[in-house]
Amino acid sequence: MPFVNVVVTRDGITREQKAQVIREITETLQRVLDKRPDLTHIVIDEVDTDNWGYAGMTSTEYRKQRAAEQSSR
Amino acid sequence: MPFVNVVVTRDGITREQKAQVIREITETLQRVLDKRPDLTHIVIDEVDTDNWGYAGMTSTEYRKQRAAEQSSR
Amino acid sequence: MPFVNVVVTRDGITREQKAQVIREITETLQRVLDKRPDLTHIVIDEVDTDNWGYAGMTSTEYRKQRAAEQSSR
Amino acid sequence: MPFVNVVVTRDGITREQKAQVIREITETLQRVLDKRPDLTHIVIDEVDTDNWGYAGMTSTEYRKQRAAEQSSR
Amino acid sequence: MPFVNVVVTRDGITREQKAQVIREITETLQRVLDKRPDLTHIVIDEVDTDNWGYAGMTSTEYRKQRAAEQSSR
Amino acid sequence: MPFVNVVVTRDGITREQKAQVIREITETLQRVLDKRPDLTHIVIDEVDTDNWGYAGMTSTEYRKQRAAEQSSR
Repeated sequence: MPFVNVVVTRDGITREQKAQVIREITETLQRVLDKRPDLTHIVIDEVDTDNWGYAGMTSTEYRKQRAAEQSSR
Repeated sequence: MPFVNVVVTRDGITREQKAQVIREITETLQRVLDKRPDLTHIVIDEVDTDNWGYAGMTSTEYRKQRAAEQSSR
Repeated sequence: MPFVNVVVTRDGITREQKAQVIREITETLQRVLDKRPDLTHIVIDEVDTDNWGYAGMTSTEYRKQRAAEQSSR
Repeated sequence: MPFVNVVVTRDGITREQKAQVIREITETLQRVLDKRPDLTHIVIDEVDTDNWGYAGMTSTEYRKQRAAEQSSR
Repeated sequence: MPFVNVVVTRDGITREQKAQVIREITETLQRVLDKRPDLTHIVIDEVDTDNWGYAGMTSTEYRKQRAAEQSSR
Repeated sequence: MPFVNVVVTRDGITREQKAQVIREITETLQRVLDKRPDLTHIVIDEVDTDNWGYAGMTSTEYRKQRAAEQSSR
């Protein structure tokens, strides 16, 4: 009876990508852990980059810094 | 000190329905587990059907299949 | 397709209490939101009082202070 | 490898406030628990007051009652 | 920056099974959503069957009923 | 009305460390977001390193590789 919560930054994931992630994770849990798909629920949460903190800053800021570093190389 | 997270598909639940769910769960936890309502928090998350996977597909797809099955009977 | 997570302090809840909480919340979601019980999953997490913070202190400490206040009245 | 989920009511928190919360919690976990910031993720969830239950009612209702009590003093 | 929480009943999953679930989900998120593995965290929670409710009863009870049904066929 | 969930690997955190994390996060939310401590709950989850996946492997394995790399320098 698995419940899976996938939390990602909101980056324009398509409906097809979501369907594929759901299909593959369900298949993994069935094959590896013998979990029944009809008891497997998966919820995908998409989070604004301002609301996701990483390394002490928002993801918005982290990505800006990273882009600046890469363009200055 | 309960915290309860109720995760459901986004199906146009009304404000009154939310209030009733909150009232009843709080009452259950108070009566059965002796939990103080003033220490009981409940968060309702509503999830788009494209973001809820069930049985290896999105809920959007699951509902379509189910409707097709029922109309073909 | 609800998933419900009930988080409470670990206070020796019995198996019967857990079963009753599960029965009542499932019934509430079915009656109020028209959710199918065979798609309703509920997970109860029991948390040590040292790991639950409230009002800026652990629950262990909060309960001690509260007991002291009540006995000194 | 901490993951922190901060769930608050949606009250118009600014981008600057979010950044500061992220900065301070990351710093706390690094200083107190010796956790690496580059392994620390923080997600802030903002919840509508209709979806947050407290003391058996929605936060919307709770705030109304509280405001009424305070203005009637 | 994905965070994935996999919640399953406690059924004696081995260390190898956990490692494989982690490897495959990380690979899925990288291939389908282009997520960096060094920013992907996965937490597996194992829940006692008394603490997992399904269809209005504990999983312990659900499994007993199911076993009884199958043996009586 | 904040609820905060701090998920960390189980590394022998002491009761004092937990109390300090709770105190500081509560203080941050009060000062930065004006949140009342008597409405602030924090739950610390400690996760076995076999159950925490990072970079496609368990944390147990990740730490072994990292230790091996550092000792071979």
